[in-house]
Amino acid sequence: MQGGVYYEDLAVGQTFTSPARPISGERIGTFAAEFDPQPQHLDAASAEASIFGELVASGWHTCAHTMRLLVEGGMPAFAGGSMGRSVEGIDWPMPVRPGDTLHAVSELVEMRPSRSRPDRGIIRLRTMTLNQRGETVLVMTSVILVPRRV
Amino acid sequence: MQGGVYYEDLAVGQTFTSPARPISGERIGTFAAEFDPQPQHLDAASAEASIFGELVASGWHTCAHTMRLLVEGGMPAFAGGSMGRSVEGIDWPMPVRPGDTLHAVSELVEMRPSRSRPDRGIIRLRTMTLNQRGETVLVMTSVILVPRRV
Repeated sequence: MQGGVYYEDLAVGQTFTSPARPISGERIGTFAAEFDPQPQHLDAASAEASIFGELVASGWHTCAHTMRLLVEGGMPAFAGGSMGRSVEGIDWPMPVRPGDTLHAVSELVEMRPSRSRPDRGIIRLRTMTLNQRGETVLVMTSVILVPRRV
Repeated sequence: MQGGVYYEDLAVGQTFTSPARPISGERIGTFAAEFDPQPQHLDAASAEASIFGELVASGWHTCAHTMRLLVEGGMPAFAGGSMGRSVEGIDWPMPVRPGDTLHAVSELVEMRPSRSRPDRGIIRLRTMTLNQRGETVLVMTSVILVPRRV
C-alpha cells in the first residue's frame, strides 16, 4: 500500500487550505501566447486596446494555477494520485491581475464509493481561489476519482 | 469600430470548427510539472506506478489546449476579444494521450443581450474536443461575454 490519503480517510465537511503562490505578469502573457491569445491576456498594450482595458490572466491560467494549489495542499494528497472526472461549474467573479498571490480553500461536500470500481471512491470538492485581498477569483465544484483501500 | 465578429453577427445553432493541433508527450509532462504534478501526468514511469497506469494529459492541459483551438476557429473571432464569464460543466470522457491531435467543434446554443452593459452580449457555447479517432475527450458548456455593436 502506498503512502498518502485514501477515500476512507475522508469525511464530508473537511476543509483543505493551500499555501499562496504568486502569478506574474510575464507568465500571464506567455500562458496566453500558447493557450489563449486574446488581447486582454497577452500584454499591457494589447489589453489596453481591448474591450477589457487592462491585462488580466486567462481564466484557464487561473484554473491551472488553482490545480497547482490543490496539489500543494488545497486537497488531500491521495495515494497513487487522483483524477478529475468532471467539473460541475466554474465562475471567475474577479479578474486575476499581474502580481496577484493566490491561495485555494476547498471543502469536501459529498463522497460515495464508485459503483463500478471497488478500488475507487468519488468525491465532490468545492474550491474557492482567493487573492491577497481576500477577494474570490475562482469558484469551482469538481468531481474527483480517488483511491480506496482494498 | 474594430474588425471581427459582434453579437449581432451571431445566430443560435451556428457551429464553429477549429483546425487540429497535436499535443506532445513532452508538453504533457512540462505542463504537469508546472500546474498538475500528479504521477499520471508527469512521465511514463511515474504514470505506470500510479493508479491510472499510463501517461495522460492533465484535464487542465486539455482545457487550455481547447481554448487555443477555440481562438483558432472553434468560436467566432470577436472584435476586441471575448471573456469567459463562467463554465457550466466540463467532462473529460476519454483521456488525452501523448501524440493525440485534437480539434474543437462548438455550437452556439443560446444568446441574449447583457442587462447591465449595453455594449455586451452573453452567449452560451457548447464545445466538444475530439481526438484523431473521433473520440470526444472534452465536453464543455461555457458562458461568454462578447462585444455588441453600439
